[in-house]
Amino acid sequence: MEDITGILVDLFVLFTAAKVAGELFTRARQPPLVGEVLVGVLIGPHALGLVGTPDSSLIDLFEGKGGEEAAEEALTVVLDVLALLGVIILLFFVGLETRLRDLLDVGGRATLVAVLGIIFPFVLGFAFIWAIDPTNAEDLEIEAAFVATAMVATSVGITARVLGDLGAIRTRESRIILGAAVVDDILALLMLSVVSGLGEDSFDALEIGLTALAAVAFVVFAALVGTRVIQQYSIHLEKLRIANAPFLVSMIVMLGLSALAGIIGLAAIIGAFLAGMILAEAKERWSLERQALPVYEFLVPFFFVIIGTKVDPGAFTDGTILAVAVGVTVLAIIGKLAGGGLASVGLPRRSAAIIGTGMVPRGEVGLVAASIGAGIGAISDDMFSVVVFMSIATTLLAPPVLVWLLGGYRVEAVEVTKAVEEPGLPEL
Amino acid sequence: MEDITGILVDLFVLFTAAKVAGELFTRARQPPLVGEVLVGVLIGPHALGLVGTPDSSLIDLFEGKGGEEAAEEALTVVLDVLALLGVIILLFFVGLETRLRDLLDVGGRATLVAVLGIIFPFVLGFAFIWAIDPTNAEDLEIEAAFVATAMVATSVGITARVLGDLGAIRTRESRIILGAAVVDDILALLMLSVVSGLGEDSFDALEIGLTALAAVAFVVFAALVGTRVIQQYSIHLEKLRIANAPFLVSMIVMLGLSALAGIIGLAAIIGAFLAGMILAEAKERWSLERQALPVYEFLVPFFFVIIGTKVDPGAFTDGTILAVAVGVTVLAIIGKLAGGGLASVGLPRRSAAIIGTGMVPRGEVGLVAASIGAGIGAISDDMFSVVVFMSIATTLLAPPVLVWLLGGYRVEAVEVTKAVEEPGLPEL
Repeated sequence: MEDITGILVDLFVLFTAAKVAGELFTRARQPPLVGEVLVGVLIGPHALGLVGTPDSSLIDLFEGKGGEEAAEEALTVVLDVLALLGVIILLFFVGLETRLRDLLDVGGRATLVAVLGIIFPFVLGFAFIWAIDPTNAEDLEIEAAFVATAMVATSVGITARVLGDLGAIRTRESRIILGAAVVDDILALLMLSVVSGLGEDSFDALEIGLTALAAVAFVVFAALVGTRVIQQYSIHLEKLRIANAPFLVSMIVMLGLSALAGIIGLAAIIGAFLAGMILAEAKERWSLERQALPVYEFLVPFFFVIIGTKVDPGAFTDGTILAVAVGVTVLAIIGKLAGGGLASVGLPRRSAAIIGTGMVPRGEVGLVAASIGAGIGAISDDMFSVVVFMSIATTLLAPPVLVWLLGGYRVEAVEVTKAVEEPGLPEL
Repeated sequence: MEDITGILVDLFVLFTAAKVAGELFTRARQPPLVGEVLVGVLIGPHALGLVGTPDSSLIDLFEGKGGEEAAEEALTVVLDVLALLGVIILLFFVGLETRLRDLLDVGGRATLVAVLGIIFPFVLGFAFIWAIDPTNAEDLEIEAAFVATAMVATSVGITARVLGDLGAIRTRESRIILGAAVVDDILALLMLSVVSGLGEDSFDALEIGLTALAAVAFVVFAALVGTRVIQQYSIHLEKLRIANAPFLVSMIVMLGLSALAGIIGLAAIIGAFLAGMILAEAKERWSLERQALPVYEFLVPFFFVIIGTKVDPGAFTDGTILAVAVGVTVLAIIGKLAGGGLASVGLPRRSAAIIGTGMVPRGEVGLVAASIGAGIGAISDDMFSVVVFMSIATTLLAPPVLVWLLGGYRVEAVEVTKAVEEPGLPEL
C-alpha cells in the first residue's frame, strides 16, 4: 500500500463533517442530506479547502508522472469512486422500495401526475436555458437538456419523510404523491441515461432514439428476466457456504448491473436501481434492507458531501449565475405545481396544492443528474452549481409549505412509524 | 463525477472473484481469505490482467497530466484506498474482540507463549534475510526487519475458526492460544509501527527508540483515555438524533484514530485496532458487531484480493526467490513451534505441540505487514511476494496439523457456535 495517509485524513473529515451536519439539520427539522451537501461546499477546495487538495506524499507518488496536477486528478478520481459507490447504494435502496408489481398497481392518477410533472419542468427548464444561454455553452442543447432533466425527478425519500413526520402518509394525496414519485424516478433515470448517452456527441435524433431504445431494452430485460431469475433461483443462494451469501450476492448483482449499465453507455445508477428492484422480491426473506443499511450509512454520505465540495459558492457572486439559479428554481417549482395541479382536476383545490407541493423536492436525483452532467463535460461548472442550488432550494422550501397545507392532518398520526419505514428511505 | 466506468468494472470483478473464491475455499474446508488472495494473484496484472489496468476513459482524464503512467498510478491509489478501508475495518473488528480488561486477565502462560512466539520467529527471520541478502536490498536491515515482523504475528481469526470448527475452543490449550494470539497482535502491531516509522530512513537506534515510545504512548493514551471516555460519555451518544448514531460515531472514531496514527507516523491500522478496543466496552449495548458486519463483508474482501493482485507469481520461477520463500516459511513455522513449545514446559507434550501449531497461521497480519512494507518501499517486490507466500503457506498448513493433533477432542463440541462467535472473527 502506498502512503495514502493524506487521503485517509480527507475521508475522516468528509465523513465526520457529513454526520455532524446531518445531526444539526435533523435537530433543525430539515432534511439531513441538505446539511451534508452544504457542509461539503464549506469544507471543499472552493471555500475552506479542508479536503480535496493532495498532500506531499500523494504528490511524491506522481513524481515524473504528471506531478501535482496528476495528484490532484487522482484525488478527484478517488473521491469520485467513493461518491459513485455511495450513489449506487442509494439507488439500490430506492430500487428495493420499488416492486414491479406495485408499479403496475399504481393508479392512473399517479401516472398522470408523474408524466405531467415531468413534461412541465422539462419544457420550462429546457426553454429557459436554451433561450438565455447564460454560460455560452459549447453545446447548448445538451446543457439545456441536462439542466431540464435535473428539474424532472422527485425525491421519494424527502417527500415520504416529510409526509411521515406529519402523520399524513396514509392520506389519498400521499398515496398519489408516492406512486407518482416512483414513476417519476424511473422516467427520470431513463431520461438521464438518454441525455448522458448523448454526452459528448452532438444532438442527433437517431442517436437519441437508439440510446432511449437501449435504455428501455436494458430496463425491461433486467426487470423481467431478473425478477424471474430471483423468483426461481433465489432459494439456491441459501445453499451457499459463505456467511450471509444472499446479502453478498445482492452486492454482486448491484455492482454488476451498475458496471453493465456503464459499459452499454447508460448511467451506472440505473443498473443499481434495477438491481434493487429485482431483489425487492426477496428482500423480506433475506432481510436485505437491514443488512445493507450499515453499508448505506457508511457510504451514501460520501456522495452528498463530495457533491458539495464540487460547488463553487463564488459562482453566485456573479449576478447572472445567481439570477439563473433563482430562475431555474422558480421554474422547477412552477413546473411541478402546474403538472401536479393539472393532473389533479376533479380533486379539491387543497389536495391539488398538496400533490403539487409534494412533488417539488428534487433531493438526491437532481444532484445525481448534476454530477453526471459535470462529469462528462455536458454542463459547465457554473451550471453544475446552479443545478445543486435548485436541488437544495426545492428540498428546503417544500417541507414548510407541506406542513402549512397539511396543518389539519395531524390527527391521523397512527401507525406512522411503520408506514414511513415502508415506502421511505433511510435518513440521509 | 468523471467517467469511471472502467474502475467500477474492476471493483465488480474484484468483489465477485473474492466471493467466488471464498465460497470454493469454504467448501474445501480451507480459510476463505487464502482463496481471496490467490484469486487476486490470478486476476491481477501479473497474470490474467483482468483488473489493475486503466481503460481509455481513465487515461483521457490524465491527458497532459502524466498520461497513461499517471492513470496507472491513480488506479493503484484508488485500489489502495479501498484496500486500506478494508484492512481498517478488519483491524477494528480484531480490536472489538479485545477488551483491555480481558487482556489484563490473560495468564502468565499466554503472555509467555506470545513473547517467546515473537522473539523466536523475529530473530530467525531477521538473521536469515540479513545473512543471505537475497535481493541485494538497498537497506538490508530495514528489509530484514520487515520480513521478520511479518513472521511475528498470529492470526486470531484463523486459529479461532479452526479451533471452533474442531469443537476444541473451550480447552485449556485453546484459551492459551487465543490469549497469546491477542497479545501477539498487539505486540506485532507495535513492532510494525516501529519498523514502518523507520521506513525510508536508515537504521538508527535513537529513532527506533523514539518511534517505539510514540507507539506505546499512543496506544496507552488511546486505550486508557478512550476507554474511560466511552465508559463515561457513551450514554450521551444515544441522545443524538441521526439514525444509528452509536454505529456512525464508532465509524468516525475508527477513521479518526486511523488517520491520527498515520499522521504521527504509525501504521493507520493500529489506530483502527485501538478504536475497536475502546469501543469493545460498548459493543453489546450498541450491537456494534452486528451493525458493522455488513460493512466488513463489503469492504474487507477488497483488502485480500487487492493484496493478491500485487503478487507477481513469476517471481517464484526464479529459484532463489522460491528457495527464500520456502526458507522463510520453514523458519516462521519453526519459530512458533519452538517459542510455543518452550513456553509450554510443564504441560504434556501434545499440549505443547497444539499450542505451537495453533500459533503458526499468519493470516491477515502477515499480509498487512507485507503491504505496508511494500508501500513505503522498505521491501522489494520480490520480498513482498515472499512474505505473501509465507502468510498463505502457514495459514494453509497449520489447520490440517491441528485437526490431526486434536483428533480426540471432538466430543466437546458443545456450545461451539456461541464460543466461536465470541472470540473469533467473521469469515473472510
